[in-house]
Amino acid sequence: MKIFIAGVDGYLGWTLAQWLARRGHTVGGADNFARRSWVKEIGSQSAVPVAKIHDRLAAFEARYGAPLQFYRGDLSDYEFARRVLMAFEPDAIVHLGEMPSAPYSMIDAKHAAYTHTNNLVSTLNMLHLMRDAFPGCHLLKLGTMGEYGTPNVDIPEGFFNCKLRGREDWMMFPRKPGSFYHATKVHDTYNIEMACRLWGLRSTDIMQGVVYGTNYWDQEKDERLATRFDFDGVFGTAINRFCAQAVVGEPITPFGDGHQRRGFLPLQDSMQCFTLALENPPKAGEYRTLNQFEEVYDVTELAEKVVEAAGGFRTFKLEPEIRNLCNPRKEAEEHYYNPDCNKLPDLGYVPAITMAEALHELIAVLVKYKGRIVACKDALMPDVRWDGTRGAMEYVK
Amino acid sequence: MKIFIAGVDGYLGWTLAQWLARRGHTVGGADNFARRSWVKEIGSQSAVPVAKIHDRLAAFEARYGAPLQFYRGDLSDYEFARRVLMAFEPDAIVHLGEMPSAPYSMIDAKHAAYTHTNNLVSTLNMLHLMRDAFPGCHLLKLGTMGEYGTPNVDIPEGFFNCKLRGREDWMMFPRKPGSFYHATKVHDTYNIEMACRLWGLRSTDIMQGVVYGTNYWDQEKDERLATRFDFDGVFGTAINRFCAQAVVGEPITPFGDGHQRRGFLPLQDSMQCFTLALENPPKAGEYRTLNQFEEVYDVTELAEKVVEAAGGFRTFKLEPEIRNLCNPRKEAEEHYYNPDCNKLPDLGYVPAITMAEALHELIAVLVKYKGRIVACKDALMPDVRWDGTRGAMEYVK
Repeated sequence: MKIFIAGVDGYLGWTLAQWLARRGHTVGGADNFARRSWVKEIGSQSAVPVAKIHDRLAAFEARYGAPLQFYRGDLSDYEFARRVLMAFEPDAIVHLGEMPSAPYSMIDAKHAAYTHTNNLVSTLNMLHLMRDAFPGCHLLKLGTMGEYGTPNVDIPEGFFNCKLRGREDWMMFPRKPGSFYHATKVHDTYNIEMACRLWGLRSTDIMQGVVYGTNYWDQEKDERLATRFDFDGVFGTAINRFCAQAVVGEPITPFGDGHQRRGFLPLQDSMQCFTLALENPPKAGEYRTLNQFEEVYDVTELAEKVVEAAGGFRTFKLEPEIRNLCNPRKEAEEHYYNPDCNKLPDLGYVPAITMAEALHELIAVLVKYKGRIVACKDALMPDVRWDGTRGAMEYVK
Repeated sequence: MKIFIAGVDGYLGWTLAQWLARRGHTVGGADNFARRSWVKEIGSQSAVPVAKIHDRLAAFEARYGAPLQFYRGDLSDYEFARRVLMAFEPDAIVHLGEMPSAPYSMIDAKHAAYTHTNNLVSTLNMLHLMRDAFPGCHLLKLGTMGEYGTPNVDIPEGFFNCKLRGREDWMMFPRKPGSFYHATKVHDTYNIEMACRLWGLRSTDIMQGVVYGTNYWDQEKDERLATRFDFDGVFGTAINRFCAQAVVGEPITPFGDGHQRRGFLPLQDSMQCFTLALENPPKAGEYRTLNQFEEVYDVTELAEKVVEAAGGFRTFKLEPEIRNLCNPRKEAEEHYYNPDCNKLPDLGYVPAITMAEALHELIAVLVKYKGRIVACKDALMPDVRWDGTRGAMEYVK
């Protein structure tokens, strides 16, 4: 299959490109290196060194025996998007080219606006190009479990049978985003569902849980194949930050009471799920939602798992403590959470790795790059507050 | 009250400014004259002549004894938005500054993207400025009944008690937009609900039905006070187009089978509803949704009402026929439709004028400007198709 990855230089994109190449797919992709700029802007860096794109591409071709067709540019520019898709002629597009950070979207009005135009316009461009030139193409779009928020009812996979006053209809399950980043994912969801309904396009919309880990299986062989790993308070997801904190001897910091429940999955299993969705595409006109996560934990349980995994590295004497941080976000800290996850298992998904194993591998990688985390230690502490102010959060007393 | 109108030069904005001035409010507003440009772009013009802004403002001050504080610029430019809101210090903001046409948003990828950035970023800017400088300010935002689509269940006012597998939650009623214009209104809805929830802002989100008519009550006295009236296939709403067709002797053209049901209300009653919402603001932190319409008709009934109203003008021998047009949109033509409308009546809303009366007044105005409709007669025929092609629609055989 010819698969085009939007955001191929990013955390998920670079990993997926290799995963797909290994399975014999032809891979192309575009990137404007925005993720590299954003992380620099907030004063941090990837813990794992990120090779220059030229070196990445050379290593890719050497390892997989075929080039990755790379296009440098911004997919929210329609002419650029048209030029590269017409050149590549994809069977499937994986859209990983969005700004992925909730805190970054909450910095101020300009960051909120940028998140909207970057995320929504790139998707709109692809939908129009699919309609006009590639109507059979499958759009695999990355959403987030965060689109649903934390409702007091079970979370179905995208749709539910709405019963009201004696009548019923099969409807989109209501969303409740908690940041402008999450909101843009909800907006994409509505736009893509509509494009499939009006234009007969096919799409899989992935409501992904929190992903953690790094592609140690690739980077062992050639460091240029390593994907980035952000640990900072803006672009680092919860477990990634906790592991980085453990490695540099900082406290592990759940927000508030630490009882927020979320779905999690390791990077390796995220790749497995994407691949299953790509190799089992929906029908023409079908808009398919998959909830993609492996296990549900509350953030405190998660912190404890990181402490346990870190303790396994006797040589390094990693003995992190857990210290809750005042919550910079506005979110429920005690809530019901019971999302469905049936469709990926129906497609054949079986988790390949446990959280304990994945955390062990991750910490082993981070120990190697400890110096790079130490160099940006200040960035570990979340400082974007949902009320519009900025400044390092304090510990809960 | 000091009320700021975004889009004060537009169809609703210019009418509302005067309505509020008459009730003793201090009115300010901004506009970048985008509506004037869009209508020119698609080759049409307002049937009612639109005075230059300088003349409009002079007439406003002469009539109401106080100036309208006008700011020329684009509210999706944050610095402009900040400057004007800091200068005006509003108690309420009425956001009528969005691109309001479904067909315009469906022309191509660039028009879809423009609709998103124009509509969403202006709202984001206002929400951030309210949070930072006017936390008590009331945002009255114009949405559309079209956000809901045509579900097979009753349509509540924004929220419903979601029951699922033995549990329940008070949730946003699911939306199902039918164009990118409608989608941007859904996106705004999610953004504003979230801003109220996270930041304690107050907002009324109006799900407005199809508005028709012109502000004949103002324009009788001084033509410079007249609001615009678009009759073209892109910016003209259904009844407005039907009346223009009747006046120039063209067939009245429901789409497809003509059984699409919608809620309608005359401009005068739309003004009454806005005023009630402004003078009865929601509490701090409250996000309030009002469904705003007067009567529900299917499009064929509507066409028949226009024929009947036109027949009342014996002197002009207006005898329009109804000829259904192939539907350029993709929409259900036979469907259930039963939206609630309880909250505005609870605030005191009593329709001031019947559809028959409003249509009579409207046709009287259009007869006066018949020459301006004839001059752009080609624009009467819808030519933006939902499948991305362009060209005048054919009649149903």
